[in-house]
Amino acid sequence: MSLDPQIAEKLLSEMRRGAIVLAVLGQLQREHYGYSLRKNLVDRGLHVEEGTLYPLIRRLEKQGLLTSEWREEDKRRKRFYRLSTDGREIYAQLMHDWQLLNTSIQKTTGRSE
Amino acid sequence: MSLDPQIAEKLLSEMRRGAIVLAVLGQLQREHYGYSLRKNLVDRGLHVEEGTLYPLIRRLEKQGLLTSEWREEDKRRKRFYRLSTDGREIYAQLMHDWQLLNTSIQKTTGRSE
Repeated sequence: MSLDPQIAEKLLSEMRRGAIVLAVLGQLQREHYGYSLRKNLVDRGLHVEEGTLYPLIRRLEKQGLLTSEWREEDKRRKRFYRLSTDGREIYAQLMHDWQLLNTSIQKTTGRSE
Repeated sequence: MSLDPQIAEKLLSEMRRGAIVLAVLGQLQREHYGYSLRKNLVDRGLHVEEGTLYPLIRRLEKQGLLTSEWREEDKRRKRFYRLSTDGREIYAQLMHDWQLLNTSIQKTTGRSE
């Protein structure tokens, strides 16, 4: 049986998907517009394409986890996003679960027990 | 806009999915049969239903990441699984990426910068 080269890529993107949602919610504890949000994620080592990030933001807003507001800044109208009350609650829950998952993962790494 | 109670659950299961694959591969650096694998995961805080775990193992084997062997143990025939060479390679890659994602996540938690 030979390895399909797309398998690693598929598993990786599956793993990244959940982490990206969490990181986006984490960043939006403070207000950001699209560009500043993406820059902040990249600065923290999370390279997210615009084509992934912007649809995700819209989905999260549609789900009621974000609020947004158009405002002018530097003579340009920008759409600013931040967590809604529901978003803050879900973020806390997801972050709690991430920590538990991470603890489990670290415990399953070692070969010897 | 009111919060759909299934949204948190959906985001959580999305996040768990990738982590479970990683934990299963991590455990299968050593040989396990289904029951002992599941017990080891639960012991490390990762509660995975049989209905999730067993189809996942079969999928990973089909993808060439696991090898399996039927053997008798305690007078019962059991199917033992462990990582294949490809599986070991992909596990190392996913684990590396998990550590990077986790570092990014921890950096996006703080409100102040």
